[in-house]
Amino acid sequence: MAHTHHGKDKLLARIRRLKGQMEAVERALESEQPCGDVLQLLASIRGALSGLTVELMQEHLTEHVVAAENEAERQVAARELSEALRTYMRGE
Amino acid sequence: MAHTHHGKDKLLARIRRLKGQMEAVERALESEQPCGDVLQLLASIRGALSGLTVELMQEHLTEHVVAAENEAERQVAARELSEALRTYMRGE
Amino acid sequence: MAHTHHGKDKLLARIRRLKGQMEAVERALESEQPCGDVLQLLASIRGALSGLTVELMQEHLTEHVVAAENEAERQVAARELSEALRTYMRGE
Amino acid sequence: MAHTHHGKDKLLARIRRLKGQMEAVERALESEQPCGDVLQLLASIRGALSGLTVELMQEHLTEHVVAAENEAERQVAARELSEALRTYMRGE
Repeated sequence: MAHTHHGKDKLLARIRRLKGQMEAVERALESEQPCGDVLQLLASIRGALSGLTVELMQEHLTEHVVAAENEAERQVAARELSEALRTYMRGE
Repeated sequence: MAHTHHGKDKLLARIRRLKGQMEAVERALESEQPCGDVLQLLASIRGALSGLTVELMQEHLTEHVVAAENEAERQVAARELSEALRTYMRGE
Repeated sequence: MAHTHHGKDKLLARIRRLKGQMEAVERALESEQPCGDVLQLLASIRGALSGLTVELMQEHLTEHVVAAENEAERQVAARELSEALRTYMRGE
Repeated sequence: MAHTHHGKDKLLARIRRLKGQMEAVERALESEQPCGDVLQLLASIRGALSGLTVELMQEHLTEHVVAAENEAERQVAARELSEALRTYMRGE
C-alpha cells in the first residue's frame, strides 16, 4: 500500500526549493565565491532540511502510527519512525 | 579577493551527490513511495550535509582564520565562521 | 496514570552520569582549566544527552503510543512526542 | 597558561542552571512523572546546552584564535575548536 502524503504538493515544493539551494551552493563553489557565503548557505539548507524532516516525522506519527488501520501497520510505521530518529540523531 | 577552496573538486562532487539525493526524495514523493523511505532519505541527507558543513567550517578556520594574510582578513573570516555557527546551531 | 519507564534504573544511572559531567564542567571553569577542555566536555555531554533523548523518544513511541491502552491515551502520547520533537529540532 | 573565560561568572551560572535542570529530570524519573514531561525537559536541556556550547565556541574563536599572542598558540586554539566542532557534529 502506498502511504500517500497529506499535503504532497507543498512537500514537493519545499524539496524543490532545497534542491535549488543546493544548486546555489554548486554555483557559488564553481564561481569561487567567498567561503563564508558557502558556509552560510550550507548552514541555512541544513536548518531548512531539519525543519522539513521533523515535520514529516510528526506527520508520519499522526497519519501512519496513530491512524494506522491495524496493529501490524502501526508497528511497521513506528519502526520506520524509530529508525529515522536514530539516523537523524547520529547525523548531527 | 576570492577565497578559493582547498580541494574544490572533491567538495563539488559531494555537493552534487547531495543534490542527487534530494532528487531521489523528489522522485520518491512523486511516485508515492512509503513515507518511511522518504523519512530515512531525508535523515541521511541531513547527516551528510552536517558532515560537509562541519568539515568546511574546519577548513575555513585553518585556511581563512589561522592562515589569514593580515589582521583585518582574520577578523572578517572569524566573523563569517561565527555567523555560520549560529545559523548551524539554530537550524537543528 | 503514571507512565513508568521500562528500564528506569538504567535511565537514572545515565542521568546521574550526565549530572556528574556537568559538575566536571563547573569544576573545570572554577579552576580555570583551558577553554578547549571545557568545549570538548560540553560537546561530549551534548552528544550523550542527544543519544539519551532519542532513545527515550523511541521508548515513548513503543510503550506509550503503539502500546497505548486506548485511543485517547494514544493521541495524548503522540502529541507529547510531537512536541518533544519540535523542541529537540529547534534546540540545536 | 590558563585561558580564562571572559564572563566566567555568567558562564558558571548557566552551567549551574543546566545542572539544576538535570536534577529536575532525575526527580521526575524518581517520582514516576509522565514520560512526556521527561522528554520535554531533556529536549529543552539539550537546546540550552547547544546554545551554550556554540557561544563558547564563538568566544574561543575570538579570544583564543583571533586574539592569540603568537602563531603557536593560535594553532593550538584552532585545533581545539576544530576537535570540539567534530564532537559536536557527531553528537547529534
